[in-house]
Amino acid sequence: MAGTNTAKENTKAIPLAPAVILVRPQLGQNIGMCARAMLNCAVTELRIVKPRDGWPNPDATAAASGAIALLENAKIYETTAEAVADLEFVVATTARERGVVKDIYTAEAAAKEIRARNVNTQKCGIMFGPERTGLESDDVALASAIVNIPLNPGFSSLNLAQAVLLTCYAWLNADNPFREEQVVPDLGDTAPATKGDVENLMKHLEDDLDTGGFFRSPEQRPTILRNIGNFFHRSGMTQQDVRTMHGIFSCLTGKRMRK
Amino acid sequence: MAGTNTAKENTKAIPLAPAVILVRPQLGQNIGMCARAMLNCAVTELRIVKPRDGWPNPDATAAASGAIALLENAKIYETTAEAVADLEFVVATTARERGVVKDIYTAEAAAKEIRARNVNTQKCGIMFGPERTGLESDDVALASAIVNIPLNPGFSSLNLAQAVLLTCYAWLNADNPFREEQVVPDLGDTAPATKGDVENLMKHLEDDLDTGGFFRSPEQRPTILRNIGNFFHRSGMTQQDVRTMHGIFSCLTGKRMRK
Repeated sequence: MAGTNTAKENTKAIPLAPAVILVRPQLGQNIGMCARAMLNCAVTELRIVKPRDGWPNPDATAAASGAIALLENAKIYETTAEAVADLEFVVATTARERGVVKDIYTAEAAAKEIRARNVNTQKCGIMFGPERTGLESDDVALASAIVNIPLNPGFSSLNLAQAVLLTCYAWLNADNPFREEQVVPDLGDTAPATKGDVENLMKHLEDDLDTGGFFRSPEQRPTILRNIGNFFHRSGMTQQDVRTMHGIFSCLTGKRMRK
Repeated sequence: MAGTNTAKENTKAIPLAPAVILVRPQLGQNIGMCARAMLNCAVTELRIVKPRDGWPNPDATAAASGAIALLENAKIYETTAEAVADLEFVVATTARERGVVKDIYTAEAAAKEIRARNVNTQKCGIMFGPERTGLESDDVALASAIVNIPLNPGFSSLNLAQAVLLTCYAWLNADNPFREEQVVPDLGDTAPATKGDVENLMKHLEDDLDTGGFFRSPEQRPTILRNIGNFFHRSGMTQQDVRTMHGIFSCLTGKRMRK
């Protein structure tokens, strides 16, 4: 499976995954959903600044869908400054414009920057504000840069876990330059048909069509056969498909399957 | 803002955004969250096959966070076959292995394929199964191809709205090849300092340091000044930053700001 292999390779970098810093999150349910989204992307270090409803929070556990260890290992801080004190590069997710002088990254560019800093074993973090209000200017001031997730400008408000998911997903997949090209045929338990298999099938069909009087005009026969052959050759048949089609032709003509 | 411009350009293609097909979804809340995630990504056509709790569903409306029109325009179908009948290319999201013979795309590769088919005005769709069980084989059989979202293989189960978000986000951003490079400095209301501004500042500092007896060793003076200059020149100062630093130096030496 293409997707699975990719993810496996990516998770080799887990020790240097960014920390996720939730600043003053309100709902335990959202914290749990963030934990789930993080683990989906092999990001495991959760830091929480002043969770409104205290910690631990049973609502978080209920919403984490199994990402429990991540919640149990979460570190709780009184201030954002303490939560990021040991980090070398921190990006702040914020949709609102602010009069701050910082580079603005897309989620993907931030992910690439974090990956690049991983090479120098720099510890990075991604900071998210409270559900309703977002990060305050004093929080943003602690960040090295800002992340804007490119969305529909007419409807760009994400819930907390969705924002965590998109940024962490960008990080998980940041070192896979072939992701956009990745298409892998899944043949299941069978092998692809050879061109010879397809030609045998065509021969079978051709005989049946001749027997059935399919070709009214002898002049058109080669063209029609070529068109039919074109279809079967480009259709991506498996050996099983070829066997099935032999069976279908035999059935339709009232014969048993040939071999 | 880089992110915003990108999204604006992308949404020009809205008429050919893929349809999202939710097959037998269970919770209204999840349908509403899917609608929100779709609209975040400028994907607006929702099709629902046999919603478990009927339609319309007030739980969906409550969870849509404003994406109401999208729910009101949703089309309801009895069967998956009817829901995809007018579509030319449909991908099925499924995490589970199946003995089916179809190409497997990553979310990003599927997005690129859908964009490419847009050029020929082909109508495309992305199909999602019920929350707990996922798509059935009969649903998957109707798809042109399969999408696997590359995630942590040890924890790859997404909730429905998260799966919708990642696939639609990939579509929204599929025609922006520069997304991974996109870093834009935001200088707020001020302009970047010129090299001359920084040199004036260095001159100010140099005078003050000379006056203060900072340079114990005359031999070291050029090296130390060069290192300080290096810092200010690479720090990305704005004109406001330069003014502020002039003020700081003047304050520290007990003088008023020079000009």
